[in-house]
Amino acid sequence: MNSLKPTEIISAHDITLIDAYWRACNYLAAGMIYLQHNPLLRQTLTGEHIKQRLLGHWGASPALSFTYIHMNRLIKKYDLNAIFLAGPGHGAPGVLGPVYLEGTYSEVYPNKSKTEAGMQKLFSEFSFPGGIGSHCTPETPGSIHEGGELGYSLSHAYGAVFDNPDLIALCVVGDGEAETGPLATAWHSNKFLNPARDGAVLPVLNLNGYKIANPTLLARISEEELTALFKGYGYQPFIVEGDVPLEMHKKMAEVMERCIVMIRDFQTQARSSQERPARPMWPMIILRTPKGWTGPTELDGHKVAGSWRSHQVPMSAMHENNDHIERLEHWLKSYQPEHLFDENGQLIPELEALAPVGPRRMSANPIANGGVLRRELIMPNIKDYGVNIAQRGVTQMSNTQVLGEFLRDIIRNNPTTFRLFGPDETASNKLSAVYEVTQKAWMGSYLPEDEDGGNLSPSGRVMEMLSEHTLEGWLEAYLLTGRHGFFHTYEAFAHVIDSMFNQHAKWLDICKNHVAWRAPVSSLNIMLSSVVWRQDHNGFSHQDPGFIDLVTNKSADVTRIYFPPDANCLLSVADHCLRSTNYINLIVSDKQKHLQYLSADEAAIHCAKGIGIWPWASNDGNTSATYTSDYDEPDVIMACCGDVPTMESLAAAAILREYLPDLKVRFINVVDLYKLQSADEHPHGLSQTDFDILFTRDKPIVFNFHGYPWLIHKLAYRRTNTQRLHVRGYKEKGNINTPLELAILNQIDRFNLVIDVIERVSFLGSRAAHLRDAMKAEIIRHIEYAHTHGIDPSEITDWVWPYA
Amino acid sequence: MNSLKPTEIISAHDITLIDAYWRACNYLAAGMIYLQHNPLLRQTLTGEHIKQRLLGHWGASPALSFTYIHMNRLIKKYDLNAIFLAGPGHGAPGVLGPVYLEGTYSEVYPNKSKTEAGMQKLFSEFSFPGGIGSHCTPETPGSIHEGGELGYSLSHAYGAVFDNPDLIALCVVGDGEAETGPLATAWHSNKFLNPARDGAVLPVLNLNGYKIANPTLLARISEEELTALFKGYGYQPFIVEGDVPLEMHKKMAEVMERCIVMIRDFQTQARSSQERPARPMWPMIILRTPKGWTGPTELDGHKVAGSWRSHQVPMSAMHENNDHIERLEHWLKSYQPEHLFDENGQLIPELEALAPVGPRRMSANPIANGGVLRRELIMPNIKDYGVNIAQRGVTQMSNTQVLGEFLRDIIRNNPTTFRLFGPDETASNKLSAVYEVTQKAWMGSYLPEDEDGGNLSPSGRVMEMLSEHTLEGWLEAYLLTGRHGFFHTYEAFAHVIDSMFNQHAKWLDICKNHVAWRAPVSSLNIMLSSVVWRQDHNGFSHQDPGFIDLVTNKSADVTRIYFPPDANCLLSVADHCLRSTNYINLIVSDKQKHLQYLSADEAAIHCAKGIGIWPWASNDGNTSATYTSDYDEPDVIMACCGDVPTMESLAAAAILREYLPDLKVRFINVVDLYKLQSADEHPHGLSQTDFDILFTRDKPIVFNFHGYPWLIHKLAYRRTNTQRLHVRGYKEKGNINTPLELAILNQIDRFNLVIDVIERVSFLGSRAAHLRDAMKAEIIRHIEYAHTHGIDPSEITDWVWPYA
Repeated sequence: MNSLKPTEIISAHDITLIDAYWRACNYLAAGMIYLQHNPLLRQTLTGEHIKQRLLGHWGASPALSFTYIHMNRLIKKYDLNAIFLAGPGHGAPGVLGPVYLEGTYSEVYPNKSKTEAGMQKLFSEFSFPGGIGSHCTPETPGSIHEGGELGYSLSHAYGAVFDNPDLIALCVVGDGEAETGPLATAWHSNKFLNPARDGAVLPVLNLNGYKIANPTLLARISEEELTALFKGYGYQPFIVEGDVPLEMHKKMAEVMERCIVMIRDFQTQARSSQERPARPMWPMIILRTPKGWTGPTELDGHKVAGSWRSHQVPMSAMHENNDHIERLEHWLKSYQPEHLFDENGQLIPELEALAPVGPRRMSANPIANGGVLRRELIMPNIKDYGVNIAQRGVTQMSNTQVLGEFLRDIIRNNPTTFRLFGPDETASNKLSAVYEVTQKAWMGSYLPEDEDGGNLSPSGRVMEMLSEHTLEGWLEAYLLTGRHGFFHTYEAFAHVIDSMFNQHAKWLDICKNHVAWRAPVSSLNIMLSSVVWRQDHNGFSHQDPGFIDLVTNKSADVTRIYFPPDANCLLSVADHCLRSTNYINLIVSDKQKHLQYLSADEAAIHCAKGIGIWPWASNDGNTSATYTSDYDEPDVIMACCGDVPTMESLAAAAILREYLPDLKVRFINVVDLYKLQSADEHPHGLSQTDFDILFTRDKPIVFNFHGYPWLIHKLAYRRTNTQRLHVRGYKEKGNINTPLELAILNQIDRFNLVIDVIERVSFLGSRAAHLRDAMKAEIIRHIEYAHTHGIDPSEITDWVWPYA
Repeated sequence: MNSLKPTEIISAHDITLIDAYWRACNYLAAGMIYLQHNPLLRQTLTGEHIKQRLLGHWGASPALSFTYIHMNRLIKKYDLNAIFLAGPGHGAPGVLGPVYLEGTYSEVYPNKSKTEAGMQKLFSEFSFPGGIGSHCTPETPGSIHEGGELGYSLSHAYGAVFDNPDLIALCVVGDGEAETGPLATAWHSNKFLNPARDGAVLPVLNLNGYKIANPTLLARISEEELTALFKGYGYQPFIVEGDVPLEMHKKMAEVMERCIVMIRDFQTQARSSQERPARPMWPMIILRTPKGWTGPTELDGHKVAGSWRSHQVPMSAMHENNDHIERLEHWLKSYQPEHLFDENGQLIPELEALAPVGPRRMSANPIANGGVLRRELIMPNIKDYGVNIAQRGVTQMSNTQVLGEFLRDIIRNNPTTFRLFGPDETASNKLSAVYEVTQKAWMGSYLPEDEDGGNLSPSGRVMEMLSEHTLEGWLEAYLLTGRHGFFHTYEAFAHVIDSMFNQHAKWLDICKNHVAWRAPVSSLNIMLSSVVWRQDHNGFSHQDPGFIDLVTNKSADVTRIYFPPDANCLLSVADHCLRSTNYINLIVSDKQKHLQYLSADEAAIHCAKGIGIWPWASNDGNTSATYTSDYDEPDVIMACCGDVPTMESLAAAAILREYLPDLKVRFINVVDLYKLQSADEHPHGLSQTDFDILFTRDKPIVFNFHGYPWLIHKLAYRRTNTQRLHVRGYKEKGNINTPLELAILNQIDRFNLVIDVIERVSFLGSRAAHLRDAMKAEIIRHIEYAHTHGIDPSEITDWVWPYA
């Protein structure tokens, strides 16, 4: 690709053509909002042609299609591999227009054919009940970004181009969206983009000046501040400003081509050099155009185009105001549809020729339907990483450290299709083994001391930035474009991305249940570490297990939650999750050392079942983990879910076995939280029969849970005789605490659990009363110990209770 | 205040003094992390003097105290009114040092006196179980920002200075924190700060270069980019860079004084001018210092100071390594404590004299304990806004529009102590009446067309920015500094600030239950509007009522949730919330038109009770809203919570009354959601007796809820015979839908409710079967109508069922 002289860029004839194509886009956008009949205005417009209820957003649409079709020109000219992301939330009409014109929409939805009838369908179904959404929903060909919630277009764009060296993601950022925090920091994604390895993002900040009812900040600062801001973010900003279409086409063609050439030059340079790739000052475009550009300029004495009044429907009250109908007709005819579409309603050939063809169309690029490109990970065998269990409950080990070795080899096996994401805690979460084969991606400057354990490299596969928003955005897009990833983050601060989780879950739910042409993508795997129970010096603000609750509000078709109690279980769960598609898998696993219980084989069986009796920890005379209705019923059931609660429940069961050997205790461990929900609410839910066999129909259950206790009640509310279900969990009691002290404050500790059991079994006599008093004394003693020594006594920290 | 010549700024002697003071701060910071005994190193340091477990964060501390004490100099020199916000998360040692040295800590916590014994207490309790937190927790005098979760220091700083014209908030932003989205956009808060009316923020970006295990982005870009970025954000950046203390004190003194003078000049100019205040280029400081500055430079062959290895404890394994003990002693003695503290352990007088006194100390500024300054709002009488109810269920009205009139007069009555916050939707949420008395705060540029409905003014009381994070941060700090506010936001996107809600709830919980000296502050009032049930064209991504669930996970001492069903109830609830303190009040109220049911007097009683029978909608022979055990028991209970569900339940009850007049229906409306929880879980919870009187002990309950249905099960799980509780609510079924269609998809609609009742009452005969079939037919008919016409039929939208 050669560098260009401006005069060569675009001829006057080509400008005329591109403007005609754009008029077709704008015509379609306006038609979608207003018309239910008479799509080509072959009859005089009447109220009957106009939808009863006008819904949709005109304001952002013209600049979106403007940008889209200018990219089309370059795709054709340079055979580019490109996708399009529409940041402005309600811009669908500006995207659906070109997607329809280039034929993809009709291919995917044959009843929206390139005919007058097809156009009528497109118009009438847009923003209509049961019809086409006003965002770039999953139903939109070429979309990987819905844009319903603002802030994530740019992180999505970067996520798509990682490890896609030829791809250019053209990302229109709305100036409303640009005010959000997630978008404001996503500009820094360029510090993680390697021009030798990754593709490129071309951001186009569309300053149309207004949000719903307000000016935008970036449109009301000086040009000096505006360009300084983007230089500060590490970009070369190019301003394209104006409102005269033919002039603007010329400017945009020149600037966009210059940007594309610049991108290719940076890439070529990085790819042909032997040196460590440097971070280029990537180009970006500031496109300043009127909101609702080409729409009505004035209505009833108020400015409309170039104002917030263009945000949604610029003219309403159509059915009450004949003058408005005339004005609408005048407006629509200003695009000259009769010169754009032939008698059948198809775009005239001269214009059709402007669009790329086949998969070069941004709407048909398979990268935006990443499932079709997805290849399964080459997975190591988890048995090679399994922990040897000579005796249960003796060895202490960091479960996540073992996982780190597994992840290391996944990275080694899959050098271009898997990345590991986390804010700043890969080492802190004990996953450092990955640094044996890779580093942290880093395109900032380097210092000599980085050589000593900095683990930085432009080609690193570990993505660390102190922005959960950006990481989540990158990963979502990385998955949606056919790759794989694993996100680990601080449990309490997973709430930072609550709303992003919600949106991705909704996206997957729609894809899975309503968009058959979308191939399954890799699951979004999130591991919460640095969990609520181990915040020894971080205190109260770092204690929040509520992300689990959030997940349970989303569709059972796409959500899974796992609590592996030890290393072999964590391996099994991670292995399962990394192979799965179209889920959001939440794994909760503490990073600290934990006792080990199950062999690799046992863990595989236990995790596959998701819930099971641990006969070796039970005292009810049964010896098999396979539960049947022949089982003798116990006096009490001790259930647990989560690594720390499991240890405490096991310790409590051991105490009970020693001091009250006649008490028949059944010990149940839950890995797959959704086993508790009924089978008609979640596909993983136990049948009522299986639940009753496991938990009996009437015996007291003392359930020790990692998270908020009432979540268990919420999930299990349809189970038999729920009044017997007694749940312990985190109840917002904490500060600077030792692990045991925090457990005691929230009553998930071994001593309180013993008391809980004693209080629920009536036939126990004075020995039980004595034991209860002893437990209360232990609680006081251990709190005092913690407050005196600052640590838990070794009998707690090195607690060992070997089971045969 | 005159402008300054650099030579005048600070003498060599004063530099020596300030450096000594800073050495005292650093000594204390290190002492807090390491020492449990021997605080003044009067004995040779041994392992017994050192804490068993070393917890705390050294890395950020020196630059925090450095900044703090340089401000002290200027507070004294210019009699400034200032507060300090520590953005770097774990910087408490760097703040607690100066807070202790200036005496406030000892005044608030007398056992941490300014003596050797007091110092020992401070050291040994820091980051120790039951002791002092390693963030600037609510227990920290002068703190309004805990910093446990990163990203909010700057929005907190701006919130504090709004309407505090003399206040300067000195805000240290960590370069880790600066990578978060919320912080990245909070820099734009300067577009809302009026130099004539508000105080000022002096941001100090501390580039110490590292996070937990990584370099920071902003420390690894060119100086050209760095300064461009902050110019782009609208600031004048001043760089203070180096690591030689005496040189750095001189630089910092000069730069900070220059900034303060500049701030005062901008303010004086704006306050003495008759013109519309312009936005100044406010100063900010980029302080580039080594992480762990003045700490060990090297350990075991690795760089420590100036590296991520200084993040937490720079030297550990103290008890296993005698060499480390010696090095620690050497390090601590490098601060020369013997020259800083007298024989009693008190700072020498020459240094004591450097700190401001009384409330001028940033740690003792009453603004940072805003409850002591808080004055109650001058509230209008809600009866003046009440809707006249001639017949129940006939008038349609936007409840939030009525609220807007009430808010308008609160703004008028309280011109400097109340602000209204929302992303961009004050008009969309029908609160436009406020524009009769105020405008939106706006310090961006102005265009002529703003005159036409733009409602912009530098003195506006409405805060709109498309960043829920920034708004929430502003409001939190505005409240914590003694003022009042009301935040309204999109229901689905309230999840954007989930984690901020969590942190504020934890802050309030600690203040209320553990920090007696903190006076109560105004409640954080959040109204969710644009709710899940009215997303006619926004579709699935805009449907999420899960914020309610989130709130229920936090302490019952600080959380309240209200669902006013009509305008008079909304007024009553808002009135109550705006008068309250130390809560987070969540109000859920749709913005669209709704039927009106209760008179102002009835609404006051109903909302005060929080839950009640509506006898006029019931059919069980009772006529009083006061429930007693004498009541006849109904056949079925129809309960509802939320404006849309209430309308649907009322319609269903009306259908049942007409077609099955013998069926005894009791109709219960819930305003205060926590009434459902048991009294020992939430202070608002109904007693078991009251619950049983209202809901009976065994009759089926068909509960129609605004949010996710299982939340009701979670709250009510301790109630009698919960198996009879059948809940309808949002279950993630939606797209582009008419209101009725969306209700039907999620089965909260009148027709499905009638079916639900019929299926739960066994004695009904063929008339009921017939009615059920009729309801099923209605469902099909209405879905078809919506899909044909794009709207609901008028009998639904104008539904009227006058009750006597």
